[in-house]
Amino acid sequence: MADITRTATAVWDGPLTTGSGTFTVNSGAIPQQAVSWAARTEEPNGKTSPEELLAAAHASCFAMAFSATLGRAKTPPEQLTVTSVVTFAPKEGGGFRVASSALTVRGKVPGIDQAQFDELAKAGEAGCPVSNALRGNVDITVEAILEA
Amino acid sequence: MADITRTATAVWDGPLTTGSGTFTVNSGAIPQQAVSWAARTEEPNGKTSPEELLAAAHASCFAMAFSATLGRAKTPPEQLTVTSVVTFAPKEGGGFRVASSALTVRGKVPGIDQAQFDELAKAGEAGCPVSNALRGNVDITVEAILEA
Repeated sequence: MADITRTATAVWDGPLTTGSGTFTVNSGAIPQQAVSWAARTEEPNGKTSPEELLAAAHASCFAMAFSATLGRAKTPPEQLTVTSVVTFAPKEGGGFRVASSALTVRGKVPGIDQAQFDELAKAGEAGCPVSNALRGNVDITVEAILEA
Repeated sequence: MADITRTATAVWDGPLTTGSGTFTVNSGAIPQQAVSWAARTEEPNGKTSPEELLAAAHASCFAMAFSATLGRAKTPPEQLTVTSVVTFAPKEGGGFRVASSALTVRGKVPGIDQAQFDELAKAGEAGCPVSNALRGNVDITVEAILEA
């Protein structure tokens, strides 16, 4: 299989704190979005941000990876609900870092118990391409909750 | 300054290849999006994907970081246009990895020459929080083009 590419473009006008920007994605799935430093580091006020996009990438990637892992174990999920909370933290001496992505998954999975669900969640996280893109730089945690 | 958190939630129904999912972001900026394995690894057909979200996160983050770097050099930009092309590559033995993010920036920046623009683009990339979240795992390149 060939490599897959996905593309997005951001336009930024002016200095960081007083300027503003937008981005678009080549699929066209997401309408043009406004971004600003204030919306990124204070209240979002209806604007997305790089960190929120990372949370969406991580949540959706882990949901797919965990579904694949459960399928290989012959217990495919009925439904997985995954939340990622990404923390953007000030660094000592100035600047910011993407400090962590905390994943929580609630699953409806026939034929499995909580211990197996926990173990397969860890395996799914280990195989998640977005997790592996962040690994070592961003603290990743997984809480797995099997629902009745 | 306190830590900043941003949150997104994905819901996935069924096995990886025959199932499908959606995600939402807590800011509400982006309407609910559909995702699927086919749209992620074949043609997007109007759907976004984790890799496209990474491209949007990286492009918008680098645009802000480079604007800040140019401002500290007393040459704030009029406008920066940043494209990120993220490559999702099959791994030997199965699975996929986020292999690279190729950044291209075109800038309108008064009072600077191409050599200075190149040098500051490298410094901006080094300070970009999303670059630093991916560093060592994902190949990052920057092409900087100063426009008249």
